[in-house]
Amino acid sequence: MSSAASTNSPRAAESGSSVVISVDAMGGDRGPAVVVAGMAKSAGKNPDVRFVVHGPRDELNRLIARHKVLADRCTVRDAAGVVTMHDKPSQVVRNGEGTSMWSAIESVRTGEATVTVSCGNTGALMALSMIRLRKLPGVNRPAIACLWPSRNPQGFNIMLDVGADVRADAPDLLQYALMGASYARNGLGVEHPRIGLMNVGTEEHKGKAELKLAQEMIARAAESGGHFDYIGFVEGGDLASSKVDVIVMDGFTGNIALKTGEGTAKLVGGFMRDAFNNSILSRFAALLAMTSLKRLQKRIDPRRVNGGVFLGLNGTVVKSHGAADATGVSAAIKLAFRLAQSGFQDRLAARVAQSQAAIANESQKDATPGDSDTGVAKES
Amino acid sequence: MSSAASTNSPRAAESGSSVVISVDAMGGDRGPAVVVAGMAKSAGKNPDVRFVVHGPRDELNRLIARHKVLADRCTVRDAAGVVTMHDKPSQVVRNGEGTSMWSAIESVRTGEATVTVSCGNTGALMALSMIRLRKLPGVNRPAIACLWPSRNPQGFNIMLDVGADVRADAPDLLQYALMGASYARNGLGVEHPRIGLMNVGTEEHKGKAELKLAQEMIARAAESGGHFDYIGFVEGGDLASSKVDVIVMDGFTGNIALKTGEGTAKLVGGFMRDAFNNSILSRFAALLAMTSLKRLQKRIDPRRVNGGVFLGLNGTVVKSHGAADATGVSAAIKLAFRLAQSGFQDRLAARVAQSQAAIANESQKDATPGDSDTGVAKES
Repeated sequence: MSSAASTNSPRAAESGSSVVISVDAMGGDRGPAVVVAGMAKSAGKNPDVRFVVHGPRDELNRLIARHKVLADRCTVRDAAGVVTMHDKPSQVVRNGEGTSMWSAIESVRTGEATVTVSCGNTGALMALSMIRLRKLPGVNRPAIACLWPSRNPQGFNIMLDVGADVRADAPDLLQYALMGASYARNGLGVEHPRIGLMNVGTEEHKGKAELKLAQEMIARAAESGGHFDYIGFVEGGDLASSKVDVIVMDGFTGNIALKTGEGTAKLVGGFMRDAFNNSILSRFAALLAMTSLKRLQKRIDPRRVNGGVFLGLNGTVVKSHGAADATGVSAAIKLAFRLAQSGFQDRLAARVAQSQAAIANESQKDATPGDSDTGVAKES
Repeated sequence: MSSAASTNSPRAAESGSSVVISVDAMGGDRGPAVVVAGMAKSAGKNPDVRFVVHGPRDELNRLIARHKVLADRCTVRDAAGVVTMHDKPSQVVRNGEGTSMWSAIESVRTGEATVTVSCGNTGALMALSMIRLRKLPGVNRPAIACLWPSRNPQGFNIMLDVGADVRADAPDLLQYALMGASYARNGLGVEHPRIGLMNVGTEEHKGKAELKLAQEMIARAAESGGHFDYIGFVEGGDLASSKVDVIVMDGFTGNIALKTGEGTAKLVGGFMRDAFNNSILSRFAALLAMTSLKRLQKRIDPRRVNGGVFLGLNGTVVKSHGAADATGVSAAIKLAFRLAQSGFQDRLAARVAQSQAAIANESQKDATPGDSDTGVAKES
């Protein structure tokens, strides 16, 4: 339960530009010390971030006291229970009250924090978020969006859904396109994102029926003032491509693509280490190339792209990798901060509402492009 | 049309161990000179390989004459037409007679050659193969199997289907498992292959309904003397894993996984080149590590794993990459030779027939494991 009193209120101390992030300190593979270290790392770089932290109070207070930079910037919410990686989502929904995960989501639900970050069990986090925050009006299936290293100026492409739901129908894929575009604008600063739809070929006749339908719907949304371009079908080889910013697919496909990509990067990295360990000469060469190899490692370091964002709920949830270290947690907090500061949640909600209006207009068969109800958030 | 006279008959000259491969010389991105160079490369390494080559006779004779090692080892079948990468499969099926692709398949259909190799348009090659060779009795959907670099002793894992059909039902996935096991035995020499089913998680409750059903069917087939192990669900990160030899999935998923993996390997390779070009010191280091880097390159070289095999037809078809160079073509020919020499086609057919009998037995609800009609090919 999240009933505990606060050590000091982050809201009270909040300045004009400061942002409160709700952090679930438990449930990660490496325990709360690493999560608090990640918070300290972020706090050291960013004077405007403050935290509400959820977990066993005494333990958290002890951990926070180790980091001077966190002094007066944390509120602790006592929560004794922990959701483990083995807990089934359905059980957590029934019995999860009193866990740090539940409490962390609660802070967003009540408006005490803008975004929550958790390293815990993905399925449970999504299930709890759905139940407690509820879906945005007009969203049928929420999605998990993640970042993939790319050759684009912003350094990353967005792929979604990577596993919220194994299925997606054409209207879901349209919603993913809109939510992904909004994320690209607010999370990566890409003003006019290019959207691609994942398929087994770029020719129009290829793929499954729902993809052809989704293609038509997304293209129409782009034409009628969606503030994004639709570039058509893309393939697995385009995840890192500079011709696209957001790649849309169902959660089954996204999960396979994400894990295949991660696995391949790891495999090639392992082969590379083997190659450099092969002889004295090559070990010497590795030493000489150290700076370059470190730059390479940084470029493909999964900790830098840590943070899956749950889209389509009344509140933003950032899922950090379960095995994240302090650097990884800090990356997830940075992403959460950026989304909070940009007002992402409100813009996304406006964007979804607007698209609902457009779809409704269109189903009346005489929608005029540019003539739809776009009062709220043209660039959301 | 494949009516042309032969320069000399490969069958007539065939010794006990020699194998005839039918080669479509046209349709690759680099033209017939590269294909003939690949044949020469194979012929130089392997005294037992002979060829029936399909394409414009005069041009082919001229190209073959450049390679001494090909003398008296090729039969040319004149075919003026070429299937291009832009031809639609349906058009090729209607109007493809007279093309080198049609003629190359014809050599397998008539029994003149055991396996055919083509660098041409995949969709057209599959469509023509289906129409001319027909599906094996008991196979609903043929599959394309390809090799993926792995940490296993054999150096590769098999993944299928990678794109013959975007859909697969549970019985199709069972067939893929059986055909993949047969390919692993005959193509890679893995006596007791371990089969995994691609899903978004390894827990039993995860994924789509057809995967749970397929899981049960494959597990039962493994238990009732299938000469393979079923290890359960695997994930995208397991493509290169040493815990599995054959990974089964529908063609949509397989195509996405294959292209994502290839794309990621290319991305990391590109980042690596950038890293080594970064400074004079790192360029010097790259020079020192040359041998090791070349070994690495060889390990992830797509030309070494060139060759998608069409499974489930009355005849074996190897699809070489359209952009393959002589080394790539030679790798595809080597694979074709190995499959031909092992009697793969007959073993696969026996295996499929046997599984049909087993499924029929089981549907009578009292099949005793080890008691089924297994006369033909216990280890096929």
